[in-house]
Amino acid sequence: MQGAFITFEGGEGSGKSTQLVRLADYLEKKGYPVVSTREPGGTAIGTGIRSLLLDGKQVAYKTELFLCLADRAQHLQEVILPALSAHKVVLCDRFTDSTLIYQGYARGLDFPEMKALLSYAAEAVVPDLTFLFDIDIKKGQSRLKGRKEKNRLDQETELFRQKVRQGYLALAKSGPSRIHLIHADQTENAIFLTIQKKIDAFLP
Amino acid sequence: MQGAFITFEGGEGSGKSTQLVRLADYLEKKGYPVVSTREPGGTAIGTGIRSLLLDGKQVAYKTELFLCLADRAQHLQEVILPALSAHKVVLCDRFTDSTLIYQGYARGLDFPEMKALLSYAAEAVVPDLTFLFDIDIKKGQSRLKGRKEKNRLDQETELFRQKVRQGYLALAKSGPSRIHLIHADQTENAIFLTIQKKIDAFLP
Repeated sequence: MQGAFITFEGGEGSGKSTQLVRLADYLEKKGYPVVSTREPGGTAIGTGIRSLLLDGKQVAYKTELFLCLADRAQHLQEVILPALSAHKVVLCDRFTDSTLIYQGYARGLDFPEMKALLSYAAEAVVPDLTFLFDIDIKKGQSRLKGRKEKNRLDQETELFRQKVRQGYLALAKSGPSRIHLIHADQTENAIFLTIQKKIDAFLP
Repeated sequence: MQGAFITFEGGEGSGKSTQLVRLADYLEKKGYPVVSTREPGGTAIGTGIRSLLLDGKQVAYKTELFLCLADRAQHLQEVILPALSAHKVVLCDRFTDSTLIYQGYARGLDFPEMKALLSYAAEAVVPDLTFLFDIDIKKGQSRLKGRKEKNRLDQETELFRQKVRQGYLALAKSGPSRIHLIHADQTENAIFLTIQKKIDAFLP
């Protein structure tokens, strides 16, 4: 088997990180070599970048963008590319789509060469499969209430969250066949069954 | 008077940072409102970015690039643009030229839209005047020996330093009239006299 790169995308509180853990467990039990990782923060430098991004008081929008890209470049070099070369299944919590939606669409950053830039930072790597978790803003928020620590993005406005949701839905609609939309307002088990079905068809 | 944006560029050990301090002192005594700053590290977030850049063990080249741009975007928003709006003289140790030379030229990063990217990160701000310090690689290195702490860039190869020097000289030769080349193999006082003369002619 060749390596496979599978990403989990969506707004806060959509349950994607929980499902990633379940999928990793499922695949490992089936004997696949799995690497579970996330952005930002999948490397030592990325952990530093993540805390700048999430704990910083007033992070400029462009600074957000470039910190995400710095994290991704390091993550690809240290983690993702070596794992794919070793024919592993890489499950990644957020990737380029997050930057396109959060920094590009929701923050409104308008660099004309944004897509070229995102591709350059990502070493032209595109996920083989993306699970995009969509959930009503208010339901997502209520799920977050249980979290102990709130970060800077958790405190964004409802308008921002709406833009993120709209952006993701527009991305799904624009049609990359790699994107599999998950209606995240279901039980954890129901969602996992959907993912399992898709994965069983996708992986050899 | 309008604000003025003056940058100091050059390789390690060229003496630019020392001259920046002298110039700040000189201008303050003449009554100019001066802001002395540097990249990376001119803001709180920038201080965190600087330590990731200089203390990190293996920083991917693209990560270097994006961390520099993240630092610059924050620096412009928090420090440079407000100071220029308040008609201050901003003296900045490294700016876009450093990224072009270190990450673009010496590291060999080949993003086709690099100039557009650098301009985007810098909010299209171009220095009014740039002092570019040129020094023989070995002399620059011997000056560094006195430093207590060595960072990651201080430990670069001679080939890398040569590329940095060549890149800066090519930049000066390419002719932006804002760039004033300083032959840094002179006494501190001789160099400062050159700078003083240029500044007296430049500022009202």
